[in-house]
Amino acid sequence: MISLRKPYLLFLGDVQTRWEAKTALGVADWCPDDVIGELALPGAQASTGQPALTIRQAAERGAGSLLIGVAPAGGRLPQAWIAVLLQAVEAGLDIVSGLHSKLSDIPALVAAAQARGVKLHDVRHSDWPRIIGTGIKRSGQRLLTVGTDCALGKKYTALALTRELQALGMAASFRATGQTGVMIAGSGVALDAVVADFIAGVAEQLSPDNAADHWDIVEGQGSLFHPAYAGVTLGLLHGSQPDAIVLCHDPARSHIATCPDTPIPALDEAIAAYLQAGRLTNPEIRCVGISINSSSLSDLDWAEYRDRLEAELELPVVDPMRGGVAKIANALALRR
Amino acid sequence: MISLRKPYLLFLGDVQTRWEAKTALGVADWCPDDVIGELALPGAQASTGQPALTIRQAAERGAGSLLIGVAPAGGRLPQAWIAVLLQAVEAGLDIVSGLHSKLSDIPALVAAAQARGVKLHDVRHSDWPRIIGTGIKRSGQRLLTVGTDCALGKKYTALALTRELQALGMAASFRATGQTGVMIAGSGVALDAVVADFIAGVAEQLSPDNAADHWDIVEGQGSLFHPAYAGVTLGLLHGSQPDAIVLCHDPARSHIATCPDTPIPALDEAIAAYLQAGRLTNPEIRCVGISINSSSLSDLDWAEYRDRLEAELELPVVDPMRGGVAKIANALALRR
Repeated sequence: MISLRKPYLLFLGDVQTRWEAKTALGVADWCPDDVIGELALPGAQASTGQPALTIRQAAERGAGSLLIGVAPAGGRLPQAWIAVLLQAVEAGLDIVSGLHSKLSDIPALVAAAQARGVKLHDVRHSDWPRIIGTGIKRSGQRLLTVGTDCALGKKYTALALTRELQALGMAASFRATGQTGVMIAGSGVALDAVVADFIAGVAEQLSPDNAADHWDIVEGQGSLFHPAYAGVTLGLLHGSQPDAIVLCHDPARSHIATCPDTPIPALDEAIAAYLQAGRLTNPEIRCVGISINSSSLSDLDWAEYRDRLEAELELPVVDPMRGGVAKIANALALRR
Repeated sequence: MISLRKPYLLFLGDVQTRWEAKTALGVADWCPDDVIGELALPGAQASTGQPALTIRQAAERGAGSLLIGVAPAGGRLPQAWIAVLLQAVEAGLDIVSGLHSKLSDIPALVAAAQARGVKLHDVRHSDWPRIIGTGIKRSGQRLLTVGTDCALGKKYTALALTRELQALGMAASFRATGQTGVMIAGSGVALDAVVADFIAGVAEQLSPDNAADHWDIVEGQGSLFHPAYAGVTLGLLHGSQPDAIVLCHDPARSHIATCPDTPIPALDEAIAAYLQAGRLTNPEIRCVGISINSSSLSDLDWAEYRDRLEAELELPVVDPMRGGVAKIANALALRR
């Protein structure tokens, strides 16, 4: 089980877009009390809004870990960052990384951490048991957030739904499946780093048997419509065997963000595809709402878009950042 | 690049079913000239039909490697086998394994192999570059074998189609995606061992750009309808971007072999699901034939079943073990 030392200094590297900084932004938004500041390299184009601190300043203010809050394509650690990480180790900070490449594969960093008595956490490489999925139905209720693309609000939606259900007095647990989710929750699994044969089996273990009225709110990964990541998405869908899905979507995107040749499907087609695939392990699966990343819309356009979508799809439509997810949570609560 | 030392002594452990011995059976069937015999433990219930040899006898007859030809569920190496492997190493044989658990994680075996100067090959752990899928269309033609379940003929069908196309004078390459395929072909990737984020990306690399009239015949993995493995199947489908699929099916199975709660879909539904998913990276994908594992049927029943299916689906229906795959290969050749 992972146990991370907070508070965090969020490291942004020379991040060019907010999309690349989604790890740092997610941590800053969902556990701001655990963040002490941010550190960016010259040329960085995004910020979490946290105060800019040097490593020395962060250490003086009690930082526990430098958290690598940026995810370059391919997951490799740029050489230029290693000097920064060594400086953080020297200052007594643990390092927390969600990248594919391992901190523990950098001999100079390993030696420095041992000498200074600090820890290197490769969150994406947690060592879950290798168990083949069974497809056997488990007790308890499960909700999985799914998407028309990657990085458009599946984690936010799951976290917001968990809080809202708990506020309604329901038993609900957030189940983290990505590095940021694990950093926020302090436990979970980075599912995209699991060996392919075990995706569904690990997803099954992540939401074990539970009380009949307990909801596991499982953080979705990838998209069935993404040419690179659909396999992870399908394995998670099968292993989670959700009773309910919430479809996450960004109306500003006409194509998969990293694949300009691949169009985003219509929402009713996307729902149908997820339900068809999900029925393999839970014939009762249904869509209980739509979560929109409406950051590209004016207040007026958002209200119009939301109302039109609700009428078309006959489902509650929310934006967790703009009005919250109560409509979906209330509907789930009414089913008790 | 893997380079395996043949001929093989096929090790069967205490295998209970032919299904578990599919690695040994595949190697024995597809490269019999590279097999010198088999070795089973007391209580074994399956055989490849190769002569039973002790390790000493195999070494005297020039065996290059002991090949672990049995795949226990979960992929773990039973403790009882290690004594056998040590004996083989002592006799000067390399060890070839397609299991998830690594030979290189067994210190006694590693030490013995180093002392004797022989090699330990973990075929399932080949070190392919970690590249994210792009979905970008590549030149050349591709055919992927897909299935209603696992272990019902996808590799055999792909190997048979490759040979048949080559016999027709067409340029065709078999692309191995499982440990047995790699053992037969001498190259390829065990896709189910790739980290989940890279399934589609590795599949893209496996069938790179090629001449317009060249066919890559890609060995399928898993099944879209298998609760444990569908993620691997979908990633391979997207990364292979096949122009053509051949659906493999065993009419004796009403349910997924290892998941009694999960029914096998109707063939037309299965075809529709594969084509729908495959259109994401190749809108021109189509089904060009059905490959049946008809081992449960009499000659008469097979002929009736085949004719009925051909009429229903309007596609060529073959059994690679019973009449061959010429009908499908000829249809592909006519499209040149």
